Amino acid sequence: MTITHSETDVFTQDPLRFGVGARVTISVMTDNYVEVILNALDAVDPGGLSLATGDVSTWVGGHEHDVLAYLTAVTREIAATGHHASVSIHLSRGCPGEVACALPGGAGPRVVTAPQGEVTGLWAAAEWALYPLGTTTSTATDDAGRAVEPEHMTAIYAAIESTRAAGLYRGSEHYVTRLEGDLGLILGHVTAAWVAVGASVQHVTSHLTLSLNSPSHASATSLGDHS
Amino acid sequence: MTITHSETDVFTQDPLRFGVGARVTISVMTDNYVEVILNALDAVDPGGLSLATGDVSTWVGGHEHDVLAYLTAVTREIAATGHHASVSIHLSRGCPGEVACALPGGAGPRVVTAPQGEVTGLWAAAEWALYPLGTTTSTATDDAGRAVEPEHMTAIYAAIESTRAAGLYRGSEHYVTRLEGDLGLILGHVTAAWVAVGASVQHVTSHLTLSLNSPSHASATSLGDHS
Repeated sequence: MTITHSETDVFTQDPLRFGVGARVTISVMTDNYVEVILNALDAVDPGGLSLATGDVSTWVGGHEHDVLAYLTAVTREIAATGHHASVSIHLSRGCPGEVACALPGGAGPRVVTAPQGEVTGLWAAAEWALYPLGTTTSTATDDAGRAVEPEHMTAIYAAIESTRAAGLYRGSEHYVTRLEGDLGLILGHVTAAWVAVGASVQHVTSHLTLSLNSPSHASATSLGDHS
Repeated sequence: MTITHSETDVFTQDPLRFGVGARVTISVMTDNYVEVILNALDAVDPGGLSLATGDVSTWVGGHEHDVLAYLTAVTREIAATGHHASVSIHLSRGCPGEVACALPGGAGPRVVTAPQGEVTGLWAAAEWALYPLGTTTSTATDDAGRAVEPEHMTAIYAAIESTRAAGLYRGSEHYVTRLEGDLGLILGHVTAAWVAVGASVQHVTSHLTLSLNSPSHASATSLGDHS
């Protein structure tokens, strides 16, 4: 299916039609989890986002900047309770469906300015994976036959480098990158990386698992220790 | 980088060198979460798997069949406590590294027989995503110029069809497929799909979020209701 330029604009300019959003699973390790989670969700205004809650996760759809603001606000509320919690976040853009995208190939990419993370003063540990879909990672060659990285791989390396520069990078683990530091900055860098790779790839997803207030973080939850 | 046939065998025949494994985050919604989680982990023999526990997740690496057996045994222990829990599972094979695979391209795919799920008698709701990486989804054409689905897309459609046939499929949600039914059968079908797509694609990941004993499942936890 080929689409015209004006159809491309329709798909890429409307975040919902481009499938921009997140699924979030908040797990709070307390008998009072229902109250803690409902309080957090009630305290946050989803603004212009579409929202649907389910038993496995909550979905929010809309502009990338609004998605970041929402994720930051909700996880900040949870972290501020002091309860140990894990938050699983699934970001997606460019494929507003399930397996077979409802959006035709060629309807992207969608280019938006990099979302900026907000300092929360709350510490988190995280594991992060970033997936450009429907792209080959094989090395192309330039006119002189020299190897050239695909554009999205360059964006991925730049994203990881930005987490190093921000002091959030803690190393490579099996299948994921480990991040530690300010909750809001982690969310900001992860969201910005998802957007950056999406400047050259239509369908990009990212999975982030956050650990908040873990007992094993007792010696590490001072942000000053990780500057 | 090109590799020889015998080097390919070395990479594909050793699950650890091929990067086969899972990261698992278990969250139990009770004040006694430490005891519940440690009891579950202690009750399960990881067998031949490599295992590393962390504050964000536990990693197990090894043969696909052993990974499924481990995931089934641990989640069964958690579900049997009756506590509400969410379990986030990240399967990966074909890229034993972080972003840039430590494994050279062309070292796969790795073909193994389909893992078989085990009936546990315990009900779960789940959201599932399956990602073939480094592949294009663009439609190829045959000699006569007719559109041909790439092999891995055929495998993905077959995997979803198998969840329908098993009565586990509950529909398409934003970015994920919703499954409901026996915990062990859900894990079996998800693991089998990951392996099946991996028969034609080197790097395949899959993310599954399980909800166990949710209060909102009260009317649905009888497996008889969902046959």
